[in-house]
Amino acid sequence: MTYTPKGKHLIAGEWIDGDKTFASSPAHGPVHEFASGNEGLVDRAVWAAEQAFEVYGYTSRAERAAFLDAIADEIDARGDDVTEIGTQESGLPAGRLQGERGRTTGQLRLFAQHIRDGDYLDRRHDGALPDRQPPRPDLRLIQRPIGPVAVFGASNFPLAFSTAGGDTASALAAGCPVVVKGHPAHPGTGEIIAEAIHAAIQKTGMPAGVFSFIHGDSNAVGKALVEHPLIKAVGFTGSLRGGRALFDLCAARPEPIPFYGELGSINPCFVLPEALATRGAQIAEGWVGSLTLFAGQFCTNPGLLVLPADGADAFVDTAARASDAVAEQVMLTHDMAQAYRDGAGRIGDLAATVTRTESHGRNARPNVYRTTADDFLRDHALGEEVFGPMGLIVTVKDDDQMIDLARGLEGQLTATLQMDDADIPLAARLMPVLERKAGRVLANGWPTGVEVADAMVHGGPYPASTNFGATSVGTMAIRRFLRPVSYQNIPDALLPEDLRD
Amino acid sequence: MTYTPKGKHLIAGEWIDGDKTFASSPAHGPVHEFASGNEGLVDRAVWAAEQAFEVYGYTSRAERAAFLDAIADEIDARGDDVTEIGTQESGLPAGRLQGERGRTTGQLRLFAQHIRDGDYLDRRHDGALPDRQPPRPDLRLIQRPIGPVAVFGASNFPLAFSTAGGDTASALAAGCPVVVKGHPAHPGTGEIIAEAIHAAIQKTGMPAGVFSFIHGDSNAVGKALVEHPLIKAVGFTGSLRGGRALFDLCAARPEPIPFYGELGSINPCFVLPEALATRGAQIAEGWVGSLTLFAGQFCTNPGLLVLPADGADAFVDTAARASDAVAEQVMLTHDMAQAYRDGAGRIGDLAATVTRTESHGRNARPNVYRTTADDFLRDHALGEEVFGPMGLIVTVKDDDQMIDLARGLEGQLTATLQMDDADIPLAARLMPVLERKAGRVLANGWPTGVEVADAMVHGGPYPASTNFGATSVGTMAIRRFLRPVSYQNIPDALLPEDLRD
Repeated sequence: MTYTPKGKHLIAGEWIDGDKTFASSPAHGPVHEFASGNEGLVDRAVWAAEQAFEVYGYTSRAERAAFLDAIADEIDARGDDVTEIGTQESGLPAGRLQGERGRTTGQLRLFAQHIRDGDYLDRRHDGALPDRQPPRPDLRLIQRPIGPVAVFGASNFPLAFSTAGGDTASALAAGCPVVVKGHPAHPGTGEIIAEAIHAAIQKTGMPAGVFSFIHGDSNAVGKALVEHPLIKAVGFTGSLRGGRALFDLCAARPEPIPFYGELGSINPCFVLPEALATRGAQIAEGWVGSLTLFAGQFCTNPGLLVLPADGADAFVDTAARASDAVAEQVMLTHDMAQAYRDGAGRIGDLAATVTRTESHGRNARPNVYRTTADDFLRDHALGEEVFGPMGLIVTVKDDDQMIDLARGLEGQLTATLQMDDADIPLAARLMPVLERKAGRVLANGWPTGVEVADAMVHGGPYPASTNFGATSVGTMAIRRFLRPVSYQNIPDALLPEDLRD
Repeated sequence: MTYTPKGKHLIAGEWIDGDKTFASSPAHGPVHEFASGNEGLVDRAVWAAEQAFEVYGYTSRAERAAFLDAIADEIDARGDDVTEIGTQESGLPAGRLQGERGRTTGQLRLFAQHIRDGDYLDRRHDGALPDRQPPRPDLRLIQRPIGPVAVFGASNFPLAFSTAGGDTASALAAGCPVVVKGHPAHPGTGEIIAEAIHAAIQKTGMPAGVFSFIHGDSNAVGKALVEHPLIKAVGFTGSLRGGRALFDLCAARPEPIPFYGELGSINPCFVLPEALATRGAQIAEGWVGSLTLFAGQFCTNPGLLVLPADGADAFVDTAARASDAVAEQVMLTHDMAQAYRDGAGRIGDLAATVTRTESHGRNARPNVYRTTADDFLRDHALGEEVFGPMGLIVTVKDDDQMIDLARGLEGQLTATLQMDDADIPLAARLMPVLERKAGRVLANGWPTGVEVADAMVHGGPYPASTNFGATSVGTMAIRRFLRPVSYQNIPDALLPEDLRD
C-alpha cells in the first residue's frame, strides 16, 4: 500500500484544488503535483477557524484530549505510508521517520494527558471580603485559549515540528483552531498527516474548521497568514532570516500578535580542562557523532566547540579522523545543501581547516574548522549558524578567556558542558553566563536529543527564539496559546465550566 | 516637615546633576527645578543594572523579600512628605494619595510574600530514566530573572503605577534590576520614592545598581532606554500613541525584547434589560460616579455604556442630572486637560449631547454623549479612548445588536455586565464575546477598582495591552520578568539554589 497524494489543500474539511500547482522535489521516488496556496485560501481557512473557535474554544478538556489521542491513532494507522513518503521527500532514513513518528504521536498523547490533568489552567481564586474597606470582590482567574493560530511546518522534522507537530498539538490542546502552512519540501508528508487529522475530526465530531492545511510554496501564503486579523499567534520553526521577516510582519500589524519563532543557534559546547585531559578523544568522537547525525540538520546541532588550547591538538586530530570517516548524506533540499556549502565556505575563509570535504547536489559531508577565541570574538561572522554538518573548534588561552567567549555569545537554544568533578570550580563560573544565554544547559551529553517533557525548554534568548519566555517543546509549550482572564463577581452559571464551584 | 526635592537623578546610589534642567508644573505649591535626563545617563544606569544583576540575580528569595519590605517601610516613613508633594504635583486630593500609598506598599509586601512562597518558580523535574531506550536524562526547570528591566512611570497613579509601582515591584521581586524613567508630571514624587528605595538598598545591602531613577522630560530618554542592548524588557502604562511608538522601537531592535505596555481602553459596560427596568436610575448614578471619580483618570474608566433603546431615556436623564452635579476637578497636567477637551469635542461632533460642560486650563468637567449602535459600529472614532471624565451612552435596538456591538469592540482591560437573574440568558450569550475582548469581566460593579490579588488580570487584547498573555497588576505580573531555563544532568552543586535537592 503506497500513498498517492491528492495534491490538494484541506480547508475546513474539504479537499480543495488550486489554480496553480507546484511539483515536489523528493530525494528519491516519484514526483507529485501539489496545488499552490494563495491569499484567498488563507482567508477562507482563517474564517473557518474563527467560526470553529466558537465551538472548539468551549469543548471540554476530555473532548479535546480524545481528539488529540484520535489524531495520534490516525497517524499510527497510516504509519507505513507516512514513513514511505516522508523518507522520499526528506531523504531521511526510514528508522528516523519511524522514530520521529513515535515522538509526534507521543507528543499528542502527552498533551492529551496534560490537559486532562488541568494544572495548566492555573486557576486562582480570591474570595470576596465584603467587610473589608473597601470590600474585596470575588475574583477568579483561568487561562483561556486565544483564538485561531497559524503554524509553519519546519523542513527538518517533517513530522514532529510540522503539520501535527508540537505547535499544532499544543495549540489544539489549548483550545485553539490551527491553520498550517505546509512546508513545500515535504508536501505529501504534510498532506497525509492532514488527512489523519481530518479523520480524527470526523471521528470525534469536532468542527471542521478546527484544522486547515494549505500547501505553501510561496512567501505570499505565509505573509497572508500572519497578517490575517483573525490570527492571534504564530508558531514557527525555521531560519533566522525567514523567521525575522515574519516576526517583523507580526509586530507591524495594526493589532500586533506574538510570533513564537524558534530560529537559529550554534549550541556551544565547552570542554573543560579536566574532562579534556581524561577523556578528550571520547568527547571528540561524541561531538562529531552529534554534529553529523542526519547531516547535522538539527536546531540543536552543536556547531561550536570551545576547549583549552593546551591539549587541543590531540582533540582536533581525533575530530578530524572521525569527521573524515562520515559518509555523504542527503540533505532536506537542494537549496539547503547549497546554503550549507556556501556557509561552510564562508567559515572556511576565516578559520583553519580541520576537515574540508567536497559534496555536490543535495548531498553534504562534514566540514570542521578551527580558530582562536581572539579571532572568534573579533569576527561576528564566525558565530553565525550554518545549517548542516559543520563544526567550529575554538581554542581559549585560559579559563578567563573561556568565560569571555561565553559572554560574547548570542542567545542559544542550548549550552553544553563537558566536565569532570575537578572542573566544578570553572563550571560554577560558567553557569551564570550560560543560563543567561541558553534555554537549556546540559552536562556531559550532547544537545541534539530534545526530550518532550514537563521540564524541557526548547527556546532561549534571541536569535535562538523570538520569545525567551516560551518553549516550543514540552508541556509548557501550551502557554503560548493561552491568556489569563479574570472574572469578578460573575454568577457561577456564566463562568467557564472549569471555573465553576 | 516638607520635602524639598534635590532635583537630581539617582544612578546606582549616586545623586547626579544634569547639564540641563526643567521646571515642574504642580497643580498648586512651589515649582522646583529638576535635572533633565539624557542618553549618557541612561547608558550609565543600564550598565550599573547589568553589573548589579550578577549579584542581585542570585540573591535568595528571602533577601529580596526583605528588600521589598524595606522599600515599603521607607515609603511609609516618608508618608506625609509623599502625600504633600504628590498632591501638589498631581492635583489629586490627599485622601487619594494616602490610599494609593497603601496600595503601593501593600503591593510591595504582597510580592515579598509571593516570592517567599516560591510557587512562582514553577519548578519541574523529570527524573532520569536510564533504562529507557533512548535513556531519558534528568531534567529540571525553574524560572530565572531575565536581567535589567526598564520601567516608565505613569502619570495617573504617581505612586502605584510609577517609580515603586507594580512594574518595579514585580521586576525586583523576580530578581531583575530596574531603571525607571520618571514621569515629568510628578518629578518630585518620583524622586522622594527613589530616595526611599535608595535607603532600602543601603539598609539591606543590595548592590547600588539594582535601581536607578532618571528624570525623563524628553522622548530621547525613553528611546535610549528601550533601545539599550542590555535592557531585556520594558514595563509601561500610558497612552496608546506613546506606547505603540515604544513597542515599535522594542520590536525593531536587533535583539527584540518584550514591551509590556498597558495602553488604552474604553471599558464597555452593558446594562441588560431586566437590570435597566428594575434599577436603571441606580445604575446611571453609579456609572457617573465611576466615570467622574478623580476626573476619570483611570485606565479602567467606564467610558462606554451600552443599553437597550427601550428605557434609555429615563437612564439618560438620570445620568445627565448626576453628571451636571459633578464639580470641576483638576487634571494631572495642562496637556491632558486640553487633550480631554479636544477628545470630548471630537466625540461631541459625532454624537448627541447629554451633558456638555465647559472647563478651562487644567480643569475638567464631565461630558456625556449619546449615540446609537448603528452609528457607533459605523464610525471607529466613536470607540477611541478619551482620557478623562467623558462617557458615551450607546443604545441598541435589541439583544442581537448588543452582541453585534460587543463583537465590534477592540481589546479592552475590562468589560462590565449590569444584570439581574432574568438577564442570565442574554449574559450567557455575551460572555464568550466579552471574555475574548477583555482581560477582566465583571458583573454588577464598576471597573475602576483594580484589586491587587492573585486572580487579577490588568491587561487584555490590543490595544488594552501589547501582550494579552500578561497582567501588570496582581502577583501574576512577576511572570513578565522571568524566563524558563532547563538544566539537564547538571550536578547539584551547579544548580540554582532553588532547584537543588
